[in-house]
Amino acid sequence: MEEIQKFIQQHIHALTWQEEHAGLYDPIDYMLASGGKRIRPCLCLLSAELFGGSKENAIYPAIAFEMLHNFTLIHDDIMDKALLRRGKESVYTKWNTNTAILSGDTLFAESYRYLLRYQGTELLTLISLLTDTAIEICEGQQWDMDFEHRNDVTINQYIDMIRLKTSVMLAACLKAGAVTASASEENRQRIYDFGIQIGLAFQIRDDMLDVYADVAKFGKNIGGDIAENKKTYLSLQAMHLAQGEDFDRLRYCFSSFDGTKEEKFIAVKSVYDKYNLKHHAQDRINSYYEEAFLLLDQIDVDQQHKQPLIDFVNQLIDRDS
Amino acid sequence: MEEIQKFIQQHIHALTWQEEHAGLYDPIDYMLASGGKRIRPCLCLLSAELFGGSKENAIYPAIAFEMLHNFTLIHDDIMDKALLRRGKESVYTKWNTNTAILSGDTLFAESYRYLLRYQGTELLTLISLLTDTAIEICEGQQWDMDFEHRNDVTINQYIDMIRLKTSVMLAACLKAGAVTASASEENRQRIYDFGIQIGLAFQIRDDMLDVYADVAKFGKNIGGDIAENKKTYLSLQAMHLAQGEDFDRLRYCFSSFDGTKEEKFIAVKSVYDKYNLKHHAQDRINSYYEEAFLLLDQIDVDQQHKQPLIDFVNQLIDRDS
Repeated sequence: MEEIQKFIQQHIHALTWQEEHAGLYDPIDYMLASGGKRIRPCLCLLSAELFGGSKENAIYPAIAFEMLHNFTLIHDDIMDKALLRRGKESVYTKWNTNTAILSGDTLFAESYRYLLRYQGTELLTLISLLTDTAIEICEGQQWDMDFEHRNDVTINQYIDMIRLKTSVMLAACLKAGAVTASASEENRQRIYDFGIQIGLAFQIRDDMLDVYADVAKFGKNIGGDIAENKKTYLSLQAMHLAQGEDFDRLRYCFSSFDGTKEEKFIAVKSVYDKYNLKHHAQDRINSYYEEAFLLLDQIDVDQQHKQPLIDFVNQLIDRDS
Repeated sequence: MEEIQKFIQQHIHALTWQEEHAGLYDPIDYMLASGGKRIRPCLCLLSAELFGGSKENAIYPAIAFEMLHNFTLIHDDIMDKALLRRGKESVYTKWNTNTAILSGDTLFAESYRYLLRYQGTELLTLISLLTDTAIEICEGQQWDMDFEHRNDVTINQYIDMIRLKTSVMLAACLKAGAVTASASEENRQRIYDFGIQIGLAFQIRDDMLDVYADVAKFGKNIGGDIAENKKTYLSLQAMHLAQGEDFDRLRYCFSSFDGTKEEKFIAVKSVYDKYNLKHHAQDRINSYYEEAFLLLDQIDVDQQHKQPLIDFVNQLIDRDS
């Protein structure tokens, strides 16, 4: 894994831009350098190796998808008014909204330019995959924003939303790796579906971390979802389970609450705790992981080749940040 | 030309989106339906026919570039705080900034999806062209925004900026048509360069219309560039030519002016008129057109095949809106 991480870092550091457009590319460098866990390119390279391909081949979609991911984060942070990203100022905070819009647009286009360096026969398949993924992520973000103004969002609608907003990107990275390794259509679909399940698990874990994480490790404000009345797996499940006074208290918190952000967080969390929502969420996370690993079992390659991917995903499950 | 316009409209009307994401696609429909003059897809189809290709083949890049163009307008209007676009509310005014960001992103991705329908052998050439063009437009927009805060912009830097922001799109549309018609590399380059010159002429004409157009026909606020201290061919040339009191007055108008928008417009325009800037700009426009037509002459196809493109461009020169 260290080798793969290093390989990805090298390729990200090697990115160069036109100097006379520093105003456009500095925010891109800032965003890409702040890094995060490089989950998406790792998944792409691990998938390529799973199917007998090489990381040298898979690096093109891997970096392209990492760029696409960072583009979506730059724009999401504007839309969500997120001041912090990975423990640092978000691009729109450090620069301004206009710069964040434009640098994001540029990074999106640059992801295609990077992918176009790929020399394999299935470049068009990869371009289609990048395109479909970008559109689905936008559709997911739109639902996410719509949900903020709705009081009738069901758990299933929420799952549909996070599938688009989070899962399809992970799934596409895995599939892209499989494409570069010329995997069969069936295996491409299975590894894609594996990614969907893993993504749902990750997002619900993220929802949980917003309430239950250690702020120093998490690197963003705890309770941000609650402060902004975001629909999450926890909030929807809580509204579904809470009875009588508890339900009224939640509804009050998520609509006309007039105390401080901290008071609101404590009020909501006390209901979550009473209904054992941390446990509920963990059950749901586990069931998505189980489904994911059933899909991985069905992939007809030597079991031992699956181990690096399994180790990587297990390591992500255990993260508390 | 009517036939070509109709052909383009048919393909734009035929665009369909997922109903459950109406919040995302309604602004896209609104933007594409409001239309404008369809200059870019027209250029693409006319170029294809110039080189003996078909409009049926060229429609894929034609519509893709029209989508790319509209994406850039949706985002530019946020950045420029433009309330009106084509005489109607801009997307960010009619909806809000977040919707405009996200619908713009989606439209950008959809332009690739549309282009991917193209069945010819040079699809990758077209995808590269779309990508390079998108990046250059962003680079142009970044310079345009930077220029607002600078007092040392030269005419040449301004021309470099509008080449990126305006010309490369027209040039790319013309080249894309040539690619679908399997034109030679030399001819592709010539028609591209023709587009660059035409684009420079269009933009300077736009700068002129901001001061001298009939508001009812122009469909956006007259004097917007002056109100926002935008660098234009006129303002830069004026700062270059104006002497003594005139120079001081301009500098005052473009920095600390504390009167109304209308007073500022009248003050600036009086200097423009004194130095005959309308005439100056017209000379520059004419010289770009001459250069453009010299390039068109060098394209080695039957002169009579060039006539529809020549007629179209001449019609655009004469537009007063």
